[in-house]
Amino acid sequence: MSSLENQEFEIEQANERFYRAFESLDIHQMESVWATDVPVKCVHPGWDLRSGWPAVRDSWVLVFNHTTGIRFEVTDVDIVVNGDLAWVTCMEHVRMVNNGESQQSRILATNLFLRRPKGWLMVHHHGSPVFSGTADQ
Amino acid sequence: MSSLENQEFEIEQANERFYRAFESLDIHQMESVWATDVPVKCVHPGWDLRSGWPAVRDSWVLVFNHTTGIRFEVTDVDIVVNGDLAWVTCMEHVRMVNNGESQQSRILATNLFLRRPKGWLMVHHHGSPVFSGTADQ
Repeated sequence: MSSLENQEFEIEQANERFYRAFESLDIHQMESVWATDVPVKCVHPGWDLRSGWPAVRDSWVLVFNHTTGIRFEVTDVDIVVNGDLAWVTCMEHVRMVNNGESQQSRILATNLFLRRPKGWLMVHHHGSPVFSGTADQ
Repeated sequence: MSSLENQEFEIEQANERFYRAFESLDIHQMESVWATDVPVKCVHPGWDLRSGWPAVRDSWVLVFNHTTGIRFEVTDVDIVVNGDLAWVTCMEHVRMVNNGESQQSRILATNLFLRRPKGWLMVHHHGSPVFSGTADQ
């Protein structure tokens, strides 16, 4: 595996860890995938921006407190690496259970990861709802 | 002005040029703010991802063809620089006129810029609608 392929594999794994942490609904697992010591930002679908780890952390606690079950199938993962920063786009196919009711949705995500001594950690997550099947509908 | 302040000023100017290009509804002006020779991506609010300049360009032509007037007030501009890549978040306060009808909306944007020989050029735009006044509503 080339160095670039290896790097992309590591970033894909980091992206995957983020979604497994989301599914766990465990704030400590979520915290472990973020670079909490640098400026981080997070946009949940339809929400205002949260800036800085304390505010981003709060938002996850809020999301987890209102979610009883969530599963992600992540497709169309595309990675661009630029030095020690990588930006990833992917489509989240989300299944949620809230109050016994099952919901499905598609969310487009831009995820940024920074290479830190302990690996690639998330610095930015922007998720937004997809309303149309294709861009020109 | 320090080197970092100067860099942030240049990035802020690049971000500003993007919104002026959007208001112009002129595809050539829009093309001039993008790094068209590298992998670029664009997510318009509610749309699927467009990847690569030809597809991104098409999406702008489509947006411009369906818009008769648009004005942006851009607030909460926050810039993080990492080497020759910068990521910017901002709130777009949008006023649109379509078929004589005026609409207002708030869009949260993640914009990435890459430093190129001719300046900071856009490589990624992700805009998403904001449904709530604050994140916890």
